[in-house]
Amino acid sequence: MKVILIGATGTIGSAIAQALGSRHEVVPVSFSKSAIKVDLADKRSIMRMFEAAGRADAVISAAGLARFGPMTSLTDEDFALCLGNKLMGQVNVARVGIEYVNDRGSITLTSGILSRTPMMGSTAISLVNSALEGFARAAALEMPRGIRINVVSPNWVVDTLRAFNMDPATGTPVEVVAAAYVQALEGSMSGAVLEAI
Amino acid sequence: MKVILIGATGTIGSAIAQALGSRHEVVPVSFSKSAIKVDLADKRSIMRMFEAAGRADAVISAAGLARFGPMTSLTDEDFALCLGNKLMGQVNVARVGIEYVNDRGSITLTSGILSRTPMMGSTAISLVNSALEGFARAAALEMPRGIRINVVSPNWVVDTLRAFNMDPATGTPVEVVAAAYVQALEGSMSGAVLEAI
Repeated sequence: MKVILIGATGTIGSAIAQALGSRHEVVPVSFSKSAIKVDLADKRSIMRMFEAAGRADAVISAAGLARFGPMTSLTDEDFALCLGNKLMGQVNVARVGIEYVNDRGSITLTSGILSRTPMMGSTAISLVNSALEGFARAAALEMPRGIRINVVSPNWVVDTLRAFNMDPATGTPVEVVAAAYVQALEGSMSGAVLEAI
Repeated sequence: MKVILIGATGTIGSAIAQALGSRHEVVPVSFSKSAIKVDLADKRSIMRMFEAAGRADAVISAAGLARFGPMTSLTDEDFALCLGNKLMGQVNVARVGIEYVNDRGSITLTSGILSRTPMMGSTAISLVNSALEGFARAAALEMPRGIRINVVSPNWVVDTLRAFNMDPATGTPVEVVAAAYVQALEGSMSGAVLEAI
């Protein structure tokens, strides 16, 4: 399958690329480091990205910015960034992507464990992650031509926890997270939230 | 308790006012029909509303606009309205309201059954409802002074179904929905999603 992979150079995206590379044709997309670039905050950039990448059997998004911090410190701009980037960026990948995905193809977005298991500082991220899951559950009912849509909700990745000086013991190896995207791509579920924990 | 009730003149809000009226002091707020008015899409309007209503023991929001329609017909403006009104309007009620709610008081927001049980046409509403639930789960961890925050997720109300020429048999009487808000107000839960079905 030809798979457009958004966020291909990130921690999770790199692992997805590695997991898919031998079996599928991956078209890597990222904010700045790939031949095809995208700014998720800009719907026209998403449209140009799909024009450049061309029709595909699947789109995987493992990208999107969101802000962490105490609720009383998060500004209106912080919330707007979360809504405009990780949330509507990925929703727009689905809205625009429908036109570029082949029959019986798939769209896979990324939420995260903070949706169901919040922590102090996660109000904006928990909001966005839950929103993506609710969107995908509903969008699955309307997808044309047998296209499936799912969300992978990854736990904290071991490497990310290390980078934040948090206990890596509670994390999930990035290969396990990547495997959930492969499942979403090669499986037959739709409207599902695949928890990679 | 003194309870600021946003959306006091709506179908659900009127029933909440009736359920609370004999036991608590209700300060009704609505977009246009109450002495104190609020436009949820405008954070400054929310700030003025709290200034006018004064400190209270609880805030209940049973308000917020969102758009229903096929995903491919919903415009960028439709999604923006949903995010700016029902979603961020209520999130801002919580963000601003923290300063006006007394110790051990409560904030109760409204999502809806389409969060967990979507239907065709509900992509934007399911997104918003799920987002509110994720936000409240996380915000509950950070609330100061023993303030609680919860979300009521009402089923379709019988009267609403009748108004839309849908089968009222699948709906919930508005008094049952109102009772969930009373539970949220008088109970001790926080970060909960109270399904009124």
